Order: sequence, then C-alpha cells, then structure tokens
Amino acid sequence: MKKLKACILGSTGNVGQHFVKLLSNHPFFEIEGLAASEKSAGTIYENVVDWTVSTHIPENVRDITVCSTDSKSLEKLGVDLFFSALPGDISREKESEIARMGYPVFTNASGNRMTPHVPILIPEINSDHIELINHQKYNGGYIVANSNCSTSGLVFGLKPLQSFGIREVFVTTYQAVSGAGRKGVASMDILGNIIPFIKNEEAKLESETQIILGHLKDREVERAKFPINASCARVPVMDGHLESVAVKLEDDISCDVVIDEFAGFSGPPQELSLPTAPAAPIIIQQEDNRPQPQRDLSDNGMSVSIGRVRKKGDWLNFFLLVHNTIRGAAGASILNAEYSYVKGLLGQKTEVAT
Amino acid sequence: MKKLKACILGSTGNVGQHFVKLLSNHPFFEIEGLAASEKSAGTIYENVVDWTVSTHIPENVRDITVCSTDSKSLEKLGVDLFFSALPGDISREKESEIARMGYPVFTNASGNRMTPHVPILIPEINSDHIELINHQKYNGGYIVANSNCSTSGLVFGLKPLQSFGIREVFVTTYQAVSGAGRKGVASMDILGNIIPFIKNEEAKLESETQIILGHLKDREVERAKFPINASCARVPVMDGHLESVAVKLEDDISCDVVIDEFAGFSGPPQELSLPTAPAAPIIIQQEDNRPQPQRDLSDNGMSVSIGRVRKKGDWLNFFLLVHNTIRGAAGASILNAEYSYVKGLLGQKTEVAT
Amino acid sequence: MKKLKACILGSTGNVGQHFVKLLSNHPFFEIEGLAASEKSAGTIYENVVDWTVSTHIPENVRDITVCSTDSKSLEKLGVDLFFSALPGDISREKESEIARMGYPVFTNASGNRMTPHVPILIPEINSDHIELINHQKYNGGYIVANSNCSTSGLVFGLKPLQSFGIREVFVTTYQAVSGAGRKGVASMDILGNIIPFIKNEEAKLESETQIILGHLKDREVERAKFPINASCARVPVMDGHLESVAVKLEDDISCDVVIDEFAGFSGPPQELSLPTAPAAPIIIQQEDNRPQPQRDLSDNGMSVSIGRVRKKGDWLNFFLLVHNTIRGAAGASILNAEYSYVKGLLGQKTEVAT
Amino acid sequence: MKKLKACILGSTGNVGQHFVKLLSNHPFFEIEGLAASEKSAGTIYENVVDWTVSTHIPENVRDITVCSTDSKSLEKLGVDLFFSALPGDISREKESEIARMGYPVFTNASGNRMTPHVPILIPEINSDHIELINHQKYNGGYIVANSNCSTSGLVFGLKPLQSFGIREVFVTTYQAVSGAGRKGVASMDILGNIIPFIKNEEAKLESETQIILGHLKDREVERAKFPINASCARVPVMDGHLESVAVKLEDDISCDVVIDEFAGFSGPPQELSLPTAPAAPIIIQQEDNRPQPQRDLSDNGMSVSIGRVRKKGDWLNFFLLVHNTIRGAAGASILNAEYSYVKGLLGQKTEVAT
Repeated sequence: MKKLKACILGSTGNVGQHFVKLLSNHPFFEIEGLAASEKSAGTIYENVVDWTVSTHIPENVRDITVCSTDSKSLEKLGVDLFFSALPGDISREKESEIARMGYPVFTNASGNRMTPHVPILIPEINSDHIELINHQKYNGGYIVANSNCSTSGLVFGLKPLQSFGIREVFVTTYQAVSGAGRKGVASMDILGNIIPFIKNEEAKLESETQIILGHLKDREVERAKFPINASCARVPVMDGHLESVAVKLEDDISCDVVIDEFAGFSGPPQELSLPTAPAAPIIIQQEDNRPQPQRDLSDNGMSVSIGRVRKKGDWLNFFLLVHNTIRGAAGASILNAEYSYVKGLLGQKTEVAT
Repeated sequence: MKKLKACILGSTGNVGQHFVKLLSNHPFFEIEGLAASEKSAGTIYENVVDWTVSTHIPENVRDITVCSTDSKSLEKLGVDLFFSALPGDISREKESEIARMGYPVFTNASGNRMTPHVPILIPEINSDHIELINHQKYNGGYIVANSNCSTSGLVFGLKPLQSFGIREVFVTTYQAVSGAGRKGVASMDILGNIIPFIKNEEAKLESETQIILGHLKDREVERAKFPINASCARVPVMDGHLESVAVKLEDDISCDVVIDEFAGFSGPPQELSLPTAPAAPIIIQQEDNRPQPQRDLSDNGMSVSIGRVRKKGDWLNFFLLVHNTIRGAAGASILNAEYSYVKGLLGQKTEVAT
Repeated sequence: MKKLKACILGSTGNVGQHFVKLLSNHPFFEIEGLAASEKSAGTIYENVVDWTVSTHIPENVRDITVCSTDSKSLEKLGVDLFFSALPGDISREKESEIARMGYPVFTNASGNRMTPHVPILIPEINSDHIELINHQKYNGGYIVANSNCSTSGLVFGLKPLQSFGIREVFVTTYQAVSGAGRKGVASMDILGNIIPFIKNEEAKLESETQIILGHLKDREVERAKFPINASCARVPVMDGHLESVAVKLEDDISCDVVIDEFAGFSGPPQELSLPTAPAAPIIIQQEDNRPQPQRDLSDNGMSVSIGRVRKKGDWLNFFLLVHNTIRGAAGASILNAEYSYVKGLLGQKTEVAT
Repeated sequence: MKKLKACILGSTGNVGQHFVKLLSNHPFFEIEGLAASEKSAGTIYENVVDWTVSTHIPENVRDITVCSTDSKSLEKLGVDLFFSALPGDISREKESEIARMGYPVFTNASGNRMTPHVPILIPEINSDHIELINHQKYNGGYIVANSNCSTSGLVFGLKPLQSFGIREVFVTTYQAVSGAGRKGVASMDILGNIIPFIKNEEAKLESETQIILGHLKDREVERAKFPINASCARVPVMDGHLESVAVKLEDDISCDVVIDEFAGFSGPPQELSLPTAPAAPIIIQQEDNRPQPQRDLSDNGMSVSIGRVRKKGDWLNFFLLVHNTIRGAAGASILNAEYSYVKGLLGQKTEVAT
C-alpha cells in the first residue's frame, strides 16, 4: 500500500512535535513537508526545532528543510493532505486557503471549529458529522477539526450517558501546562500554584461539547440542549487534563450500569481497527484515588480514564483524565485522517457515502 | 492584663507548629505547656520538633520540656485552656477527658465536631452557636471546634449569599498538601500530579458547611437544607486551598451585588477587634486570573480571597482561596479562643450570655 | 529454554514494583514468589500493593499470594534465585540467611555492600569482581550487590576516563525523590524546595565508586586511590539523578577525545547481548542544555546520558543523568542476574571460571 | 529629612516589581518615576503591570503614569537617582546615557558590570570599590552595579575565608526560576525537571566573584587569583539560589573556626545601620538538612544562609542560600544606594572621600 504524503503546519511547536513523532512511522501517512513560520523556513528541521517530546528527533525527519506556509511553497510539496498545529489566531485563514487549493486539512487549531460546515469530529462519538464536509465550499478540499483538549475528554464521559437523558452538566478542570503550548505558561506563574483561569477555555468546553453531542439536521449541527457549567484552571502538571464531572440524568441508573456503559463503549475507530484507535476508548479505574495524570495516561495516549463513579442525590459524579496533547490534539487529528482515509475521502476526492 | 496560660496538644506536627508560632507573642495567651506523644515527652521542644514553618523556632519555647498527654501531666501544668492539634483518631476521647477535667478546649481536630453540643464555630459566620457549650456535660469544661480546612473557606463564600436563598451548591477543590499534615502526602504521589481523592473530605465539607450555616433550635443545630455536591482533590501546592464554587440562588442578583456583599461582609471578630481577626474577612480579587495560592494568601492568613465572580444561567460561579493551616486550622482555633475570652468564657467559668 | 524461578523480596515497595514490572515478561526468569513484610503475607498481591509504576499491575502476578520472608516460607517456594529490594536495615541479615540456604541473591539493598567478598557489580564496569563470590562462605549460595543509585551513574562517567589517570573527582548531585522509596520524602519537604542532605549518601557515593573502580588483589578489592568529594541534594523530580562532575586527569586530552571515549564505551553485557543491557551504556547529548531528567531517561532506563562536556583549566566537567530506579536499582540487579546466568552461575551451583 | 526622588527603570518586570515593593515605604527614597518600554508608556502603572510579587500593588504607586526611557521623559521627572532593572542587552547604553545626564544609576542589570570603573559593589564585602566612581567619565553622574544573583551568594561564603588563603573554589548551583525573569523559564521546561545550563551564568559567577573579592590597584580592580570552577543549573524552585561550595584553603582551620567567622561576619551596612541591611549578613543553620529555599529565605531576604559546613581532606564544603531577587537583585541595588547616600554621594554630587 502506497502511503499518502502529509505536510505538518506549525511543525516546531509542542503539538507539532507530537504530530512528527506520531507520523514518523505511520502505516497510512508519511511526512513529506514540515512547515513553520517564516523565520524557520529554509533551515533543516533539527536546526530549528527545540525538540522536547522525547530524547531524539526521529531520524527520517531530521534533515527535512522546513518550508514556509505561503501557498506556493506548500503547493510545491506535492502532498496529499495537511495536518495543522497552527496558532489559533492565524489558523482560520491559512487553513481555508489550503482547503481552497483542493487539499484536505486535519486541524487541531481552534480557528475553524465554528466555521460553517466544518465538523468537530471525534470518530468514536460523532462520526456521522463527517458528512458536513460535503457542504463546504472549498473547491474539492475540506477542513476537519478536532475539539479543544478539555472537550476531547468530556465528550467521552457524556456520550455513553446520552441515551439516559442528560439534563445538566458541571465540569471543573485541572489542566496541564502543555495545553498552552511550548511557552504558554511561565514557570513563575505555575510552580506550586494554581491559576483559576484559562482564556476562552470555559466557553470552548461548553459550546464544543454541545456541538459534538448534537445531531445533524438540515446540513447543520443542532446542538445538544443540556446546559454545561464549566470552570477551568491550570495546574502544575506536564501532561494530562483531569476533569471533575457531575451529570444530572433523566433516568435513575446505578453506578454499576454507568460503569458498564463506560467500559463497553466503542465506535467506528475500534470497528475499523484504525491504527491510532485505542482498543478501549474508555478505561475504568477501580482504585478510589485514580485516575492520576502522573500514572494513568494510557500507553498510546488515546484512551480516556474514568474513576470515582459515584452518585449524590440526583447527580452522578466522576473524574476523567485525557492526554491533552495526544487524544486532545495531535492524536485526534491523525485519527480523523485515518477515519477519512478508510472512508475513501483521501486521495480520491469523492463524495462521502455514510 | 495578665495573660492566660495555654497548652498545645499535638504541638510537634505541622498545625501544632503553627499554633506555637501564632501564640508565641499573643496578647491574650501565653504558651505554658507543649504536649505531644509519649515518645517525645520529657525532651525539650527544640530537640523533638522538626521545625518547618519558618527559619527558627521562637526563642521563648525552645527550652520547654514537652509533656505527655496523660491527665496527670496535663493537670500539673496549671494552664487555663488547651488548644488541640491532635490526630483525628485520638482527639475525640482525649479532648473529652480534658474537658471533663474542667478545661476549655479549642480544637482543630475532627474527632469532636459531630459530638452533641460541640459547636463548629467560625465567629464571623455563626457566633451564636457558641451558646451550645452551655449544654455540654463536661463538668465546667467545654469543647469548641473549628471546621475542616476546606469548609473554612466555603462558608465565607456562602454566608453573604444566604439571605438571597441558596438552593444548591457545587464545590470542587484544589487542596494543598499541608492539609494532610507533616507526612500526610508522599512526594512520589503528588509531584507533577493530581490525586482526585481525599479520604472523608467530601462528606466533611458537605455536612460541616450545612451545620455552620444552620441555625439553633431547641439546643441543637438545624442544618441548612440546600444540597452540596463536593469533589475534592489534592494538588502539588504547599499551602492554600482553592475552591471552584457554583451556587444556585432563589433571588436573581447581579454580580455587582454579590461582590458588594462579599467585600462588605464582616462579623463579631471585626466588631470586637480580636487580635487574630482580619480587617476584612473576604478580599475581592479584581484580576481575571486570581486568587492564586502562590500569591494571594493574605498577610496573616485569616482572610478568604474570592475572584472570578460570574453568572451562568441560573448559577453564580466564583473561585475562593483559604489558607488551610491558618484560617483553616490553627488560626481558626485561636480566633475561637479570643472570641470566647472577650465573651467572658475563659478564666471565669461562667455561663454564656449571648 | 526453561525459565528460572525467582522470588522478589520487598516486592510491594517502589523498587519492588519495578522488579515485578521488569520481570513480568523476562526471557530468563519468571516470578514465582513475591515476599513482603508479615502484615502483607497471606493476601494476594493486587490487594496489598499500592501500585504506582504504571497504570495496571501485570496480569500474571495479580493473584500471587504474598509470602512472608521467614525461611520456611521462602524454602517452600522452590525458586532458583532471589532478588532483593529489602529495606537497608534488615537486608544484611535476611539476605545472608537466604544465601546460607544455598540461594543466589541479587540485591539492590545496601546492607551487604560492605560485607567481605560481596561484589558491588556493574557488569559493564567491573565484571571481573564477580569472581569474589567464590570466596563467600554461604554454603553454595551467594550474594551479588549492585551499587547505590547515585554511584551507578558516576562510575559510567569515570570508567572511560580511568586510563587517562584520574587524580581527583568532584560530584554534586540533584537526586530524584524516588531514590528514597515510596514514602521516603514527604511532599511538604520537597515541593518547590531543595534539601541539601541525604543521609549517608555522600559517603556511599564516595566509597562505592572507589570500590567499583578498584581492582582485585588477593581475593579483595583494592580501592581506586583518587579522592572523591561528593555533595548530595534532593530535588523535586520524580525519577532520574542528575550529577555535576569535575575530574582532574593526569593526561591532557581534548573534549572530543573524551566524548569519543564515552560514546564508544561498552562492556560484557553488550558483547553478550544480555536482555536488559542497553545498546549503548552511555548516550552523549549534543544540545547545550541536556541531559534533563524529564526528557532524557532513555527508553529502557539502562543508559546513562552525558552532556555539557567541557574543560576548565586542569578540570574536565560534565553533567550525567541516570535512571535511579532502573539502572540504579531494579534493572541493575536484573542485569547482574543475567550476567551470572550466562556465566553459568545460576541453576548449576558451580565455581566461577572467569 | 527630605526623601530623595527615584525613578525605576524596567519597573514592570519581576525585579522591577521588587524595586517598587521595597521602595514604596523607604526612609531615604521615594518613587517618583516608573519607566518601562515604549508600549507601556502613557498608561498608569496598575494597568500595565502583571503584578505578582504580593497580593496588591502598593497604593501610592498604582496611579503613577508609566513613562518611557527616552532622555526627555526621564529628564522631566526631576528625580535624584535611578534604579535599573533593565534587560541586560539594552542596559549598557541606556544607563550610560542617564549617567551622562548627570544622574547616579544603581543597576541590577548586567550590561555595565564590565564597563571600566563601574564597581560591582556589595557593601559588606568590597565597600572600598565605591571609590571607582571617581574615575568614571559621566559628567557628574555615575553607575554602581551589583552582581549577578548567584555571585551575590557566593561572595558571602568566600569573603570571611579570604584571610585564610583561598587556593581553589568549586561551586555548583541550584537556581530558582525567578532568576530568569518573569517569563524567562517556560513551565514545560522545568516542571519536575532540572536544566543543567544557564546561559553565561558560569562565566559571570566565576569572573564577578574574582572581581568583587579583588583589590583596588591603580584605579582598577585586580582580580582575586584563585580559580573558580562553576556549574550552574536551573531547578523548579520559585525563589532562592542554593549553592554547593568547596574551598581549598592554605591554612588548616577547623569547622568551628569557619562557623565562627561566618556567624561573626559583618561590614559597613551593619555599622551604619542602613535601612535595608540585615542584622547579620550570614545566618548559620545548625540542622543537618538546611538551608532550604522553601524555609530559609530570611525575613527581609538580605541575609545569606549557610549550613552543612564540613571538611573532606583538603577541602572545606558547605551549602549556601541567597534570595536571588532581593539580596541578588533589587535589595542589592537599594543597599548600594543607601550606602552611597550616607557616604554623601547622593544629592550633593561631590567627590567620594573614603
């Protein structure tokens, strides 16, 4: 099987490095281009990147010359698809431009999540939303987004409960510093400290969750109706967002039923055995003091861990943990590309038949 | 004015050291006895304590010979009152024994908080509960408890709102390691990590808050009726519990009104200018990313900081920060003793006239 | 090939858990017994261990009933060898007892490192010291120790330089909390802090290094003669001891020569392709700010990373990093057992022929 | 006594904030001007500063309009002296310009430390170096620098030993993140990590120490001759540089003598009772595991703590701790200004008569 050629936009940042690491030996895709800001362009990757996600840069990308993100440079690469780890503020326009050039763009950036007909796709949860790309006006190209990192955990805690009728949700987060990017959080701000504020995070977590758990109607997503009350804070943890969740359900179900629903949950990525799909999207932690970021980020970082499932009056409470830079970022985009690939949406430029 | 003589029970632990520090130069009380476990008894304080709350042990207590907590040793001290930083499991019986000997006991331990007629007193909040000591059967002595450390923050966030009708409360905590005592949390468990579990903490936070915000009726406390949903976690912070709070109120009031209520709140300790009372029990933080444990533990540790007051639908949200070993422990007991002193309940063994 | 049966002493602690993890799927050895203190004996492993070294306990050891360390219980297991992660204070006597019962004991504990004829073995460095076991008086059994964790790093930084004439050594350490065991360092002592003292560590680091780099003479180790000046401190890092080293050499060699010596260094474990041996015992870091504990603990934890090689006057300076619980503990003992195995010292109880 | 008017250059950064805090209620000086980069100029201080050094900005500076650092703006302020917390790269030229305008400049920046005739002054150590300002060619103005933060600790550990003949020095540092400024160290680089490199730090520590401990000769400083071997690393600590020091002395003196020399050390700031001078410049820690950054930064941050004094062969070893942003930065500059003030070098523009 011939691998498709991919270019990573924003390849030198923290999420960009995760893309490089995860794609350096991938069965469907191979890295053909590494794009970054103007000042890095023209230099080989190992000389511009401050590599931090493992001891060594993968051998096969060290010598790739970084290109800039202008359309000519990107066109010249001759790739089949793009992955984007661009900064939020410039992602909207740049990704749209690339899609208009006819390319599929799988983006972790926030800039196009609210663009009409761009799905915020998590294939275990809302694989049918992929259909939205048919309504994008990008001249053959399209954009598929994944969610914000904290959202990518919460939706796994809610989706298995949706059939029992979700009436209201509270979520309070303990978010790792890597979520803010390579230089996002200064050490003087977080050592031995908690910052009870992350810009725009609460709004994103609330609205993106309602979109992902919404349903398609007339070529649009009708958002899930239940209110979500989110409070977000940064904690001195490297990787792994922990979330305390409380859900009010219409049905009165036991904790055992809830745990069974979580443990048994799976979706198209598991059925299709996608390369990046975890065997079980949700791992249940039995111990009463788990999940913990330091111990329970599962091996490939694509499972969400859930523990302390308990009931209090009308409310069901639990803690969940998600690897923010893998399931919540680079891994999510790659899973979306894998799903699109097996659905025949890559390299062939045909209509989706879902 | 002659100072009353005090003995500190559990004087070598972390809270015990805070008692020593705060009482080493106090206008009402002076340290006469330092009690600790059998193995420390008979040795001078500086040789048994692993002093950590500041650079040096206060000069005037270095040479005090630590005594054991058996009744004969304590009786011999000839003190006027006791402060207790005993471990929870032995506090119940030992404090009752001392009260039966005729002494007032101001305790930070959890053992007697649910003992009939023992008030969980926070003088700014429920000073009238002091009246309960009249119904204790301790032969002239009595016990006054303060609350669990996380509770000591939450009640300040709720009391000023109680007149607007509290219907339901959510609280999620970020608790400092000092709350678990000197050796309570191993570094391997918390470095770069979050532990989403603190034994019994959620139950304490829920029930103690309902008691403190309850009202007296027929010599008992009738608990506040609103449900509280608490989720508690330990974070890698030395001192200072941060709490994310959501309150549903009956009245629809603006954030500005809420902030005014918080900022203007005060109680008997302020009216009486008690030595340990903060000028303002609640400090409002205007910046959008405060309060933070590393920056906003107020000077004497007795104020609660509140920030990010905001509304979401029916809910009022905010973050609060409390110094867990001062306002939430040693300082709370001392404030209770000061309040009892000015109310004529110390050194005179008379009835309370509230 | 039939695997040899092994019992792990002190199997519930942090190093014990690493032994369990590393041996749960080992080509030479299989876990037959898990021993721990009296209070854990009789219960299955998963119910007594507070498992922290990865998300889940390996399946094949979950249900093993923990046995006590009395000689009868150990004899009944019918194992071929023992690994010891016993606490230092009880290790000396207990391991001697087991050796007298005729068993080989591979120990990470400190209790027998100074026992006559017990080699402190690091097969890349001083494989000939294994010969010492012939002089042990244990009735067919024997004890092989590995070094203290900080020593296991330093010797790799010195051995490749020994042929150039080492005249004096300075070493200052930044040691991770896991080196003190599961509950060894309280979080209140190390969060945002440095503790410039580790009990006995400096003496161990100095003397063990001189022994390992010494040579055999008349059935004894003659210690290396150069003085070592060690200063040891604990830092808020989970795993990985970093060491700042300065060496005064007799020969005047360039940094390039030094780096070549380091990079090209290998020993018997590499020649014999032992399962736990790293491909390269020393990994050179080229970047000017490496090695770092968070990024450069090599994949299997058995390589030592060295960086910032530089000269200052007569002195050669560099930083080295060692994984203290793998190369410095469990992995070291297992490598020693592997080396003994291929040398015919296991399962046959014959003389060593080196 | 009329206070002299001061302007703080670089007033919004971390060291700048410390200047503001320490000068907001100072007996000799009052803040008249707050200068910062062009983009902050014209706005009031509380609206541009991200205040982090305490809960609230001092009342009396909140409303000061920040001015830019162009000469016209600075001249208009009409101040008597300047304190500089400018970034290293722009400090050299800007401070020289201000000195040429006739002003005394007390700088914490590194830019002019190697400028001819600019003393690196620590009044307890080398007060006579102040004489150098007479040889500066600044038209009545002058520049007095203080040392790099790690140097400000080391010199206190060496000066009391200098009379015993220092032959060689080793120093290895554990440096707090605040030493790199407000945004200097990213949290992703230091959480649970050590970075064994700080740009230019080792060279500064070596050369500045030799200068400060050198003596004046022919209007120049003749550097101390002993070699210094420095290794510097960043650790996850907020404030407080810890340093492991080994000194080879010509005289063979006991640890008791050394401790007495340290404990009894004082200088002109103590004799003159300067406002910022600590009672004792060196505090001896008796406990075997001190000094620690979290516990032993003395109250006003101007004392250096020393502990673990011990001998190993020819070498004397100890650990020292210095508050890097106070004794090592803002406090150092202020002490220099106080010393200059009482020496008649401020407000009078006369010659120094030492």
